[in-house]
Amino acid sequence: MVPKPLDYESINENVKKAAYAVRGELYLRASELQKEGKKIIFTNVGNPHALGQKPLTFPRQVVALCQAPFLLDDPNVGLLFPADAIARAKHYLSMTTGGLGAYSDSRGLPGIRREIAEFIGRRDGYPSDPELIFLTDGASKGVMQILNTIIRNEKDGILVPVPQYPLYSATITLYGGSLVPYYLEEEANWGLDVNNLRQAVAGARSRGITVKAMVIINPGNPTGQCLSQSNVRELLQFCFQENLVLLADEVYQQNIYQDERPFISARKMLLDMGPPISKELQLVSFHTVSKGYWGECGQRGGYFEMTNLSPQTVDEIYKVASISLSPNVPGQIFLGLMVNPPQPGDISYLKFTMESKAVLESLRRRARMMTDGFNSCRNVVCNFTEGAMYSFPQIRLPPKAIEAAKKAGKIPDVFYCLKLLEATGISTVPGSGFGQKEGVFHLRTTILPAEEEMPAIMASFKKFNDEFMEQYEDYRGYSRL
Amino acid sequence: MVPKPLDYESINENVKKAAYAVRGELYLRASELQKEGKKIIFTNVGNPHALGQKPLTFPRQVVALCQAPFLLDDPNVGLLFPADAIARAKHYLSMTTGGLGAYSDSRGLPGIRREIAEFIGRRDGYPSDPELIFLTDGASKGVMQILNTIIRNEKDGILVPVPQYPLYSATITLYGGSLVPYYLEEEANWGLDVNNLRQAVAGARSRGITVKAMVIINPGNPTGQCLSQSNVRELLQFCFQENLVLLADEVYQQNIYQDERPFISARKMLLDMGPPISKELQLVSFHTVSKGYWGECGQRGGYFEMTNLSPQTVDEIYKVASISLSPNVPGQIFLGLMVNPPQPGDISYLKFTMESKAVLESLRRRARMMTDGFNSCRNVVCNFTEGAMYSFPQIRLPPKAIEAAKKAGKIPDVFYCLKLLEATGISTVPGSGFGQKEGVFHLRTTILPAEEEMPAIMASFKKFNDEFMEQYEDYRGYSRL
Repeated sequence: MVPKPLDYESINENVKKAAYAVRGELYLRASELQKEGKKIIFTNVGNPHALGQKPLTFPRQVVALCQAPFLLDDPNVGLLFPADAIARAKHYLSMTTGGLGAYSDSRGLPGIRREIAEFIGRRDGYPSDPELIFLTDGASKGVMQILNTIIRNEKDGILVPVPQYPLYSATITLYGGSLVPYYLEEEANWGLDVNNLRQAVAGARSRGITVKAMVIINPGNPTGQCLSQSNVRELLQFCFQENLVLLADEVYQQNIYQDERPFISARKMLLDMGPPISKELQLVSFHTVSKGYWGECGQRGGYFEMTNLSPQTVDEIYKVASISLSPNVPGQIFLGLMVNPPQPGDISYLKFTMESKAVLESLRRRARMMTDGFNSCRNVVCNFTEGAMYSFPQIRLPPKAIEAAKKAGKIPDVFYCLKLLEATGISTVPGSGFGQKEGVFHLRTTILPAEEEMPAIMASFKKFNDEFMEQYEDYRGYSRL
Repeated sequence: MVPKPLDYESINENVKKAAYAVRGELYLRASELQKEGKKIIFTNVGNPHALGQKPLTFPRQVVALCQAPFLLDDPNVGLLFPADAIARAKHYLSMTTGGLGAYSDSRGLPGIRREIAEFIGRRDGYPSDPELIFLTDGASKGVMQILNTIIRNEKDGILVPVPQYPLYSATITLYGGSLVPYYLEEEANWGLDVNNLRQAVAGARSRGITVKAMVIINPGNPTGQCLSQSNVRELLQFCFQENLVLLADEVYQQNIYQDERPFISARKMLLDMGPPISKELQLVSFHTVSKGYWGECGQRGGYFEMTNLSPQTVDEIYKVASISLSPNVPGQIFLGLMVNPPQPGDISYLKFTMESKAVLESLRRRARMMTDGFNSCRNVVCNFTEGAMYSFPQIRLPPKAIEAAKKAGKIPDVFYCLKLLEATGISTVPGSGFGQKEGVFHLRTTILPAEEEMPAIMASFKKFNDEFMEQYEDYRGYSRL
């Protein structure tokens, strides 16, 4: 029989090859177990509200009013909404032509892009141009668009950290490019070694690959590290020498849980370095309302900012954005609110500040609880989560566990994570979904379960892990270490 | 100097080749003029709220409450919101895990997909499976995903109507496939002739193209026709014989302005036809909250439904959807509301019904006013807008106008539309952006300007057009006709 065009054997090979572990085998099995009535703790995706984080009140008030502008004329509106939320809703509605129901410009509302440019200017100490900021339905869509712009064919390579967030590997495969991995150093707190980068590029070139871009995720996903200033400077220099675009995934810039290495944007460091690099290196930086203390994942609000791109290329990116008309407008309003939160003196300032501080401080405590919890487990070693929303412990699987996994036809860390899921309901992502060095195994979990549930979760993890190790450990072999 | 990876000469050729006229030269010029203070009537995009259409109250109340769930506990909530909106907000929130701020499943919320399946079942008289319905950030994103799944390389062809909505041509180019045009018959009210289709397929095959899919837009964009039942049946048979997937763009299914040819979905007709075709033909159907009497373009809510696709392919499409995590959740709620509007007996029923009827009836009157207006103009001939939101008059440009356009370095209809824009502020899209037969010229305008402004707009158009024709017409030449 002739296969039909949408039969599996007929479809685009790149679609089939793309792998996306965050919602892969573990997630599908967890969903099944949940349907069967098992209590599942979804720590596979950085999705704070799904694990009980409450939305910040002020932005939700503003967006609710923007959705229901007829309330602005209602004499009772003041009973349900504070005056500054009402004023802010009017402010954002005045930026639209027709409210939230109208397509905006395909790059996003000019007024919101201006507010973002002002935020970037304050953050970095250098003015930013709203014409070089494009809003998107979440940061992932922006990453996908930029990669689609860069990649011509399988000879175009993109340097991606390993371990990495699989958005990058999946998208590079989908658009037919080549992923060029560079390893982060677990022993150096997941730092980045420029020698590794050089080797990765040299190796790729010897295989005929033109390396065109480098991805950094700072703070790191899944690895949780914050890059030092000198590390950022080094990698900018490296990109400049090697003629690479830098794609800076900075969606966790508000999620910092230590004070030694505050977040520094790639853009600020680039501009600090001065000419020629500051005038020449091509940089695209990504941010979102899904992370930080906002966690507004479901709203799908993101943006990217382009530095040192030619107007002609910016026009091409604009044209492609216009094919799908416009990013969702409520998500754009959230972006405006994120970069322009209530200020001292505003009615909502105190409440907003208390809510956002409570989220961040609790995340900081949870980062610590989780790292300590993992490090208290047999054969588990875990770097501290300096930033972002994830813990990425190394699981030292005994040879017998690796054998058992082979027999079951599973990658060893998938085997471990499936057992963990069945035993405890904790739904993680195996390290193999992010990439890791040969023979070394990890898992990724978010630090997002509610703080009060964290001790029980970590106890449940420890019980499972220590029993698993007990079951599979070769005592004599282990005692020789 | 070595070009950088994001310099124009380095980027993906398919990005450069993709053309999207709806926001092309005319739109950019209109935006410039607007900045200079000229009053612009944007009829280039089907964006009803931007031209003054008010949102329907009930759905906005529900989504506002979903955005601000803390209001549900407020004793004053009943002063601003009717009880059925409150109940409906609770209903949709109960479908989420964590409200609008949490990512949903990458296919959309299961509860909303169930409501859509029920709607399709009622509409077509055949049950629909929610597992085969995927929600997207607007219908365009769904079209793009399906085309990306189908297209492997430039040897894969997609049959697209000409004139067509440029989403299709742009996306096929972007993903490296080949557009195979089939002409709609202007003289037969933009109907579809299966002989043309056969010729188009035969011609493409002789050039080594594997034709894999066929696009229909029903009701038509930009052409405004409603396909007859027999036309839909013929084209389904054609797809079956030729082993093509049918992509049915049915986003205007609620926009019908005549009673002779009510909307019939490709799916209903397919299932009416019975086996073997009903069990075998692969069909993907698209719908949205952006059109109809909703016009909620800025919310970016859409879905596609798959018929006769293998579970393996559905899994692949799910996997790729999961790369960008989830469609925006507020847009999903709008979809739920669209397929499940207030019912007789509900508090909001009367108001909702009045509002939606008012929009549809006014659109019907405007469709008539516009067609009649165009047909009253010198050298303009226009089919009636039976459905959708557009008028697509043919402009019979005199030879001297064509010469003048050539001298100005413009395509003749671009030349005409630019002059129209400068003279009247009416921002249209030239027919060449949608495709048209050689030597024949059109423009597309939406029928969306406010009804009370329509007479003045049509008068302003007529004045411009008739003067234009006066200026360029060769009287002796014309009198010979």
